[in-house]
Amino acid sequence: MDSFIMKLISVSKEEGMISFATGLPDKRLFDTEGLAKAAEDVLSDTEYTALQYGTVKGHLPLRKKIAARCRKEMNLNVSEENIFITNGSQEGFDLIGKMFIDPGDRMIADDPCYLGALQSFSLYGPEFIGIRMNEGGPDIGQLRDSLKKDPKLYYSIPNHQNPSGFSYSADRRKQVAELISGSDCLMVEDDAYGELGFEGRAGVPVRSMADNVILTGSFSKIISPGMRTGWMIVPDEMADMTMKCVESSLLHANSFSQNVLDRYLEITDMDAKLRTIRDEYKRKCALMTDLLEDHLPSELKWNFPNGGMFIWFRLKEGADAMKLYESALKRKLVVMPGRPFHINGGENTIRLNFATAGEEEIKEGVGRLAKAYEEML
Amino acid sequence: MDSFIMKLISVSKEEGMISFATGLPDKRLFDTEGLAKAAEDVLSDTEYTALQYGTVKGHLPLRKKIAARCRKEMNLNVSEENIFITNGSQEGFDLIGKMFIDPGDRMIADDPCYLGALQSFSLYGPEFIGIRMNEGGPDIGQLRDSLKKDPKLYYSIPNHQNPSGFSYSADRRKQVAELISGSDCLMVEDDAYGELGFEGRAGVPVRSMADNVILTGSFSKIISPGMRTGWMIVPDEMADMTMKCVESSLLHANSFSQNVLDRYLEITDMDAKLRTIRDEYKRKCALMTDLLEDHLPSELKWNFPNGGMFIWFRLKEGADAMKLYESALKRKLVVMPGRPFHINGGENTIRLNFATAGEEEIKEGVGRLAKAYEEML
Repeated sequence: MDSFIMKLISVSKEEGMISFATGLPDKRLFDTEGLAKAAEDVLSDTEYTALQYGTVKGHLPLRKKIAARCRKEMNLNVSEENIFITNGSQEGFDLIGKMFIDPGDRMIADDPCYLGALQSFSLYGPEFIGIRMNEGGPDIGQLRDSLKKDPKLYYSIPNHQNPSGFSYSADRRKQVAELISGSDCLMVEDDAYGELGFEGRAGVPVRSMADNVILTGSFSKIISPGMRTGWMIVPDEMADMTMKCVESSLLHANSFSQNVLDRYLEITDMDAKLRTIRDEYKRKCALMTDLLEDHLPSELKWNFPNGGMFIWFRLKEGADAMKLYESALKRKLVVMPGRPFHINGGENTIRLNFATAGEEEIKEGVGRLAKAYEEML
Repeated sequence: MDSFIMKLISVSKEEGMISFATGLPDKRLFDTEGLAKAAEDVLSDTEYTALQYGTVKGHLPLRKKIAARCRKEMNLNVSEENIFITNGSQEGFDLIGKMFIDPGDRMIADDPCYLGALQSFSLYGPEFIGIRMNEGGPDIGQLRDSLKKDPKLYYSIPNHQNPSGFSYSADRRKQVAELISGSDCLMVEDDAYGELGFEGRAGVPVRSMADNVILTGSFSKIISPGMRTGWMIVPDEMADMTMKCVESSLLHANSFSQNVLDRYLEITDMDAKLRTIRDEYKRKCALMTDLLEDHLPSELKWNFPNGGMFIWFRLKEGADAMKLYESALKRKLVVMPGRPFHINGGENTIRLNFATAGEEEIKEGVGRLAKAYEEML
């Protein structure tokens, strides 16, 4: 699997190749000018806080800003004391796995689910229980049954999930919160795409209705993934344990990036920036789904996401999406087969990223996909 | 122990306090201007490589520069393919622990030894075997005996060790290399202070004489610790495993910092910068040891380091350095008791950092230390 993904990344860079395969945000939306100004400002600080060793939990002004936004936008009762900055939320998953998973422990994950999180938790040897992720959220019956099997963690992305683009419905959020609250299982609520709802937030976080939830967030999809700055909001009683784990594992997250991001948030109208990003992604998502409707036959299924970066594209049950992947590759289009995102099944699925490519590439790419599908048959 | 160190960090910030306690480099030596220019340059790159997701091993041009320097300065036969960038070398220890240590495995460490590494490896549950670290290097007899106990790792800092400031002699390097080469134990050679030899490198790395060695390095002590950028040089046969572990644990290290550092190295005469840092540390080290000689009685012992940031200060055998710590604190001087750096013993030791403080603080601080010692008696 690793070598397949490496191959996929490598072929994506070939001359003339169009890629819908990666998880990259649109680089045209990076605010290089604003970040350059912020970097200049923090490097003129005579206390040198951006360059010196920092504190385990992270840069206090940044943690305060994150806490304030969580209170305002998500109705979360949190303070900066609950927030730990990590080198991207991927590192957060690693820390959580380290704290809670021993080999053979059970752990629930949506099926399909973000591959990077599965790989991260896998290092600690859990036995995964996959529960079906549908439009509207996870299968509640399966979640209820799975919670009876003494799982340590439940990992889920309620907003614009990677890979499917699905979001929890309002009801499903309540149901999941009730089930989790009544269990000894800790939920890891990954909110990487929460700010990318085309018409605002897809719904309230499970964390606002249940205490035994770690919420993870990130600047990767809204400012820059290269700056590897994410955060974890942990329950009060976990704060000491998390402090020890963060300090032992990394001392603290990158101070330079934290200071630049903090300063950037001070000099930027972030709500306006987010509107621009959401509008652009909405436009590209509509473009791609319109083109799919125009060019691909009706036996194929896909969703119309209300946010995020991904469309979940499905061949008929029993069909092998790897054949479409191969056929598309011959036409210089890279798509991401859905099988690796699954604990069970998923052979007929493909993830399409509508965020990375430009308008012309999307037009040309969907054309190639349609021809590749014809040829595959 | 954790709460003690937190207290120590917290009191260090109090008004009027002088601290010889931390591991902070001298912030006056940070080249904010050069780094600001580098940041400006990388943010004007129209490919946005500093802000987008990067590659697992790290930014290729930076890895090439590190490999070139290792070949030139350390006579190491390495290429960029052996190099993995990590978010500081602390994260490297975590990755190594994750790959090689299972609960109950034996692991050798110098005694005393860098506390952060002990804490990092501790998360994976090893049983530590401490071997005495002396001026001139580790006790070879103890190392030989310990290697018979099937240890997985041997962690050591051959150059200007934290906490002691001791370096391996040329003979000891050869002896350690021979013993390690003939064993199944993997050595972790931490070179965090290798560039800080007052008269150049203290000696050749063990890695240049033995293959089963991971060498770790860092920009923390020579450019900026806040940028959390370190590296691991792994043996060829470990590259695939390390790739998988890095990708799963963090995707990749901070691209922004890597790009800024790479550009900084392009526009900076790094050898001249290093000469400035070494000269300044040499001057402050001489100042502190001279003052110690002038003001403290002869029953106390300390070394005259030839590099790094630390002096190893010893009370008589059987004395309790915590009493001196308490007595110094009353006079608004913070020192770091040596006990936490030890696997066994060390109650009579104290680590003094000569790098962080300015000249006036060093003068005033050693005066306070002398008075505190008098009062303690």
